[in-house]
Amino acid sequence: MALPKHVRIVEVGPRDGLQNEKAVTTAAKVALINALSASGLRTIEAGSFVSPKWVPQMADSADVMTQIQRASGVTYSALTPNLKGFELAMAARADEVAVFGAASEAFSQKNINCSIDESLERFAPVMAAAKAANIRVRGYVSCVLGCPYQGEVPLTDVVRVAKALYDMGCYEISLGDTIGVGTPLQAQRMLAAVADVVPIDKLALHFHNTYGQALANLAMCLPLGVSVIDSAVAGLGGCPYAKGASGNVATEDVLYMLNGMGIRTGVDLEQIIDAGQVICAELGTQPRSNVSVARRA
Amino acid sequence: MALPKHVRIVEVGPRDGLQNEKAVTTAAKVALINALSASGLRTIEAGSFVSPKWVPQMADSADVMTQIQRASGVTYSALTPNLKGFELAMAARADEVAVFGAASEAFSQKNINCSIDESLERFAPVMAAAKAANIRVRGYVSCVLGCPYQGEVPLTDVVRVAKALYDMGCYEISLGDTIGVGTPLQAQRMLAAVADVVPIDKLALHFHNTYGQALANLAMCLPLGVSVIDSAVAGLGGCPYAKGASGNVATEDVLYMLNGMGIRTGVDLEQIIDAGQVICAELGTQPRSNVSVARRA
Repeated sequence: MALPKHVRIVEVGPRDGLQNEKAVTTAAKVALINALSASGLRTIEAGSFVSPKWVPQMADSADVMTQIQRASGVTYSALTPNLKGFELAMAARADEVAVFGAASEAFSQKNINCSIDESLERFAPVMAAAKAANIRVRGYVSCVLGCPYQGEVPLTDVVRVAKALYDMGCYEISLGDTIGVGTPLQAQRMLAAVADVVPIDKLALHFHNTYGQALANLAMCLPLGVSVIDSAVAGLGGCPYAKGASGNVATEDVLYMLNGMGIRTGVDLEQIIDAGQVICAELGTQPRSNVSVARRA
Repeated sequence: MALPKHVRIVEVGPRDGLQNEKAVTTAAKVALINALSASGLRTIEAGSFVSPKWVPQMADSADVMTQIQRASGVTYSALTPNLKGFELAMAARADEVAVFGAASEAFSQKNINCSIDESLERFAPVMAAAKAANIRVRGYVSCVLGCPYQGEVPLTDVVRVAKALYDMGCYEISLGDTIGVGTPLQAQRMLAAVADVVPIDKLALHFHNTYGQALANLAMCLPLGVSVIDSAVAGLGGCPYAKGASGNVATEDVLYMLNGMGIRTGVDLEQIIDAGQVICAELGTQPRSNVSVARRA
């Protein structure tokens, strides 16, 4: 049990965030990513190459990724569910790609119309193509603390899917509380169980704040040594399963907590607040970050 | 290090919450307290007997306390800064009273125009009168994790004021992060330091959520065995030092976390959500509780 000295923030606002908000212009996305790039962030999820039928908000990901100003040392990643998506991501010069599996059988069936095992098989061509292109692949596991369809998700399923993605070649496994229902001890136990089969330095936490628990869950997981946290500027994202509810945990609030705990991130909080204020003005919403509201009210 | 099996929630919405919101009618306050009384809560801070010049929102506390339906087993408490306040509270049949000192010298001077030591001396007549009337006194310590005027508050000052209130006869000391600036390790260290001089079962945590850290701070303090948490239905309260920012940590969100951690409270979450929705409709605001928004959106 030792807190990490440094945490890498994976900024998912431009993808996981904006895909659950109303559509904004390509220019606004490009401006957001450029502003985030200047803040000290090292990893920014910039787009998604899924069918625009499913996620119309991400239909312009290729334009976004070709128009952004690439900052040195920053990895721009994209979601790629299949080989076609991977090829589009490569054409758009994604530095890294991500595949996503669910820990919940019901979620997998409802969300992507196949079983967990079938979904894992479908990643094989992406993994092979990525290896050939020398591109790193990140693996997402969704519903690690609960599922909108089946409710409880057995810990053994979370562990199995995380290990499968790791064994398949993903360099990092991001454990997602997709619907933000988890609580601190549950989060801690889940992480501990996964860390038994995947090295802790290959794990990331991806918590949504639907029930307001995300920071508490992160705080209780940090002593296990986890050192990668996914978050979204301004808490962008909403929760498609709880209308009006907040989305990803806000990068601002995570940074404030980590700063207070003496854990380095290299990210400038004020620049993140600024970037969040600009994109929220574009969306016509208020930032879903307490830190942003308190600092700028 | 052991989590408590049971936590008592001290509901401060009708007082600490509503005193920082726009004024509502006496009838609305009475209805709120009656609804809260039916939820399983054992302690409700129902009013404040300070000068209405300072806190106009609490000018009707005597009316509120005489009009509520008293539920068996529920303690209705009131804030009483001085002997006059204590006498008014007794006339209104408060079951318990509270005095409040600051851990920050600057806050004490700006807020109540006297030093910390002078403020403690002023409580002596209240303590004596309460003892004679066989009424329990709770002691609040404000600014335990930071001050809007002096910034950092030395831990030694927090410990000194908490011990002084305890030695003076307060049966419970509530440690307040008045401006909601604290972070998890800081909160844990503060509680540990105070628990060195005041028994942990005589301590309560009173955290505001201005910077979104309250639940994380509570989660990190629970393993020290603290078993009393102050919170406000719907996160009522605002922060007078950060306009637009959220107030007390929401009772709903605390209950959700404790339920998930297997810590009993005896409080019905759904009834608290209902009570919060009603008072927020009265105020024309949305609940500042993620749980309430997620459940009822």
